[in-house]
Amino acid sequence: MFDLFDADATAIAAAVRAKKITAETVVTAALTQIDALDGKLNTFTNVLRERALQDAAAVDRAIAAGQDPGPLAGVPFAVKNLLDIAGVVTLAGSKINRDNPPASTDAATVAALRKAGAVLLGGLNMDEYAYGFVTENSHYGATHNPHDLSRVAGGSSGGSAAAVAGGLVPLALGSDTNGSIRVPAAFCGIFGLKPTYGRVSRAGSALFCASLDHIGPFARSVRDIALSFDLMHGPDSRDPVCSPRPPEPTLPQLGQGIDGLRIAVADGYFATGGQPEVFAAVETVAQALGATKRVLLPEAHRARAAAYLITTCEGSNLHLPNLKTRPHDFDPATRDRFLSGALIPTSWYLQAQRFRRWYGDRLAELFQHVDLILAPSTPCAAPLIGQETMTIGGQEMLTRPNLGLYTQPLSFIGLPILSVPVQQSGGLPLGVQIIAAPYNESLVLRAGAFLEQAGVVAAPVARV
Amino acid sequence: MFDLFDADATAIAAAVRAKKITAETVVTAALTQIDALDGKLNTFTNVLRERALQDAAAVDRAIAAGQDPGPLAGVPFAVKNLLDIAGVVTLAGSKINRDNPPASTDAATVAALRKAGAVLLGGLNMDEYAYGFVTENSHYGATHNPHDLSRVAGGSSGGSAAAVAGGLVPLALGSDTNGSIRVPAAFCGIFGLKPTYGRVSRAGSALFCASLDHIGPFARSVRDIALSFDLMHGPDSRDPVCSPRPPEPTLPQLGQGIDGLRIAVADGYFATGGQPEVFAAVETVAQALGATKRVLLPEAHRARAAAYLITTCEGSNLHLPNLKTRPHDFDPATRDRFLSGALIPTSWYLQAQRFRRWYGDRLAELFQHVDLILAPSTPCAAPLIGQETMTIGGQEMLTRPNLGLYTQPLSFIGLPILSVPVQQSGGLPLGVQIIAAPYNESLVLRAGAFLEQAGVVAAPVARV
Repeated sequence: MFDLFDADATAIAAAVRAKKITAETVVTAALTQIDALDGKLNTFTNVLRERALQDAAAVDRAIAAGQDPGPLAGVPFAVKNLLDIAGVVTLAGSKINRDNPPASTDAATVAALRKAGAVLLGGLNMDEYAYGFVTENSHYGATHNPHDLSRVAGGSSGGSAAAVAGGLVPLALGSDTNGSIRVPAAFCGIFGLKPTYGRVSRAGSALFCASLDHIGPFARSVRDIALSFDLMHGPDSRDPVCSPRPPEPTLPQLGQGIDGLRIAVADGYFATGGQPEVFAAVETVAQALGATKRVLLPEAHRARAAAYLITTCEGSNLHLPNLKTRPHDFDPATRDRFLSGALIPTSWYLQAQRFRRWYGDRLAELFQHVDLILAPSTPCAAPLIGQETMTIGGQEMLTRPNLGLYTQPLSFIGLPILSVPVQQSGGLPLGVQIIAAPYNESLVLRAGAFLEQAGVVAAPVARV
Repeated sequence: MFDLFDADATAIAAAVRAKKITAETVVTAALTQIDALDGKLNTFTNVLRERALQDAAAVDRAIAAGQDPGPLAGVPFAVKNLLDIAGVVTLAGSKINRDNPPASTDAATVAALRKAGAVLLGGLNMDEYAYGFVTENSHYGATHNPHDLSRVAGGSSGGSAAAVAGGLVPLALGSDTNGSIRVPAAFCGIFGLKPTYGRVSRAGSALFCASLDHIGPFARSVRDIALSFDLMHGPDSRDPVCSPRPPEPTLPQLGQGIDGLRIAVADGYFATGGQPEVFAAVETVAQALGATKRVLLPEAHRARAAAYLITTCEGSNLHLPNLKTRPHDFDPATRDRFLSGALIPTSWYLQAQRFRRWYGDRLAELFQHVDLILAPSTPCAAPLIGQETMTIGGQEMLTRPNLGLYTQPLSFIGLPILSVPVQQSGGLPLGVQIIAAPYNESLVLRAGAFLEQAGVVAAPVARV
């Protein structure tokens, strides 16, 4: 009998499909973990106990009847509470959204995983309206890092990363606008995939910033990331930017290794401004991948500035009516960001969008000479909850706005990126970004699987 | 011998190709017309006399050598001075742009027509930076309407329309952001085509508002419009929005008539707010086409407001550096519009863009039930030069901002539109817009050809 607590989604589904364990047993075990551990972690904002047990029973009935229950049969999962769950009010980390009616249907990504047999356990904590890197939510409390409960889980998908890292669920969904999948994946020591912009439907999600938002999975194995990505991507007319590019399954490509891949380390901007250990983690991964070349991403600091500007403009537009009528109901941290965004003249926004095209063109040129680029996921390991400043290279700086230093210039142009976990002996985990040209998810996942196989990266459950 | 002054481009090219007349004779005649008439009309801002004669001689040599000189062999044409002409400074109607270096190559559309044997005669007057409907340019003077020299030619492509209507050239190019092809085509009594957004390359043109700008032709026959459109459309990597949709020639379809086409008249917004004669012109065209149905375009007034807002935001962003450093060098009329645009918060712009998608979706639904929609091109015939206000339905309103009343809500979502000329006996010409779903240029041109054949619309030279 395999260890359910440590098992990944693929192993659980295989055991359920092979009738070695029932979906009901798996889901009951996950609910027990949540009861035991979530008082300390604060990852779930709602637990769908009855519904989950019913769904698990349905999976078991299907198996008993000889039907195919799907590749995620009986796998418990949970989602950042900005994804619609039928019958539940989509909070998006806010107090204001409590006034909304319950969602009538599941978000496209939630529906895709449930259709594959996965069992939804509930919604997960996040920064209000996804605007933050720490998941210290003034309405729902801070989510704690399973590796050190005094530290943040990262954000804005902090609940998703901590629930997976702490062993509450093997699989979770989050969203990434400027780093909100990669930063918490790094801090919590697990895998997180930000797919190519427009490749996974955002239908049924509370948008933060339409031109930068991505939905993606968290897991403790690369194969789980690949499987869930394969189930979720593809065109969706309800998300107008969702690409008509036909699906190419990534899962079967995981074992192909890295032969022939041109892999380089990001230099310049991405090699400065962080703690020494994050560059050491990149070096560890680079050596394992045989990456000796270094490449320069031009004007990365401007890309970050432009990403900031577009984020605050598009975000504030979405919330302007509430900012005008009930500003006191916002989380103070996000309110001030939105208010400042509402004052920015259009000309700045258009300039940032123009730069974005230029920058995307330069990176497209770069990717003609390299297949994968490596960079740190964050400038440091998880800071303490409430920590206002941090010191890097002798320089004191604000913690929260600088955690996305290395993620923002990349999501800005929608590149697919896998954050892989490097576990430091005796220390906190760190993340390394594996970055490819648009639509090359298969390459970042192949590199991730190679590193996992080599034991260079790993995401064991952090036992709380 | 055919009458060269009245001949359309197709007839001229046929005569040149058949050696009935030389290209040099044609071009010399056009230059003579310009010398004789442009002192009154003020359409040309530069005449490329020597170059045109050289090009004509080259066409004649090609014919003498038995080579194919192209379907526009020897046809004189001219272009709004925002299209690049190699070796010439692209003015875009401004004083400021005189400081720019000469263009190194022809604009994509100019190159396409020259490659087909057409002979470029020069650049044409326009509102500064294409921001206006009257071509009363403070730097280069007002262009006069060939039908009544005391009246405007319309704008912003006023020079293009007046040069064609006055018989100086049979073919001209202009641009249409909010009506700048259709308004002057209507006032000058000729055909003007605004193609589908993204179907004709804007490479080598001075943009006004990137998300609304279109390049298109003016002519005195539908077949000239179809031929020049066929030569110009198709993907161009230098214009990132230029669509990869493969070319479908429209010219061979002109004779197919209107059998089976569902044609309706735009009601509501498009049936109010104009002089009675413009609705009479629409009715004349509708009767000839057998269009008895009426359709409502939802929220057209909002579409116009949103088009205004996006225009001023995107336009002001492009000119912001000059607005800051040398505002006095702008045309006073455009300067104030740009300055106000520079102050608009991003949230308004994003809201307008969001509405734009909604509105486009509604019109896409409408076009499932109708193939062509008819609407007036302008609310009135050409006003007097310098006329500040006009009275419509007993209400006095500003002239300049209201001339695009019926054009703005349609270019806003990039629909292909042909403005066809209805000549009033004893009065000024009027225009009627024939509107189709994106990429259906062939339908609007078929309807235009049918009306031309039936004698309902016509564009004889206005003899100055």
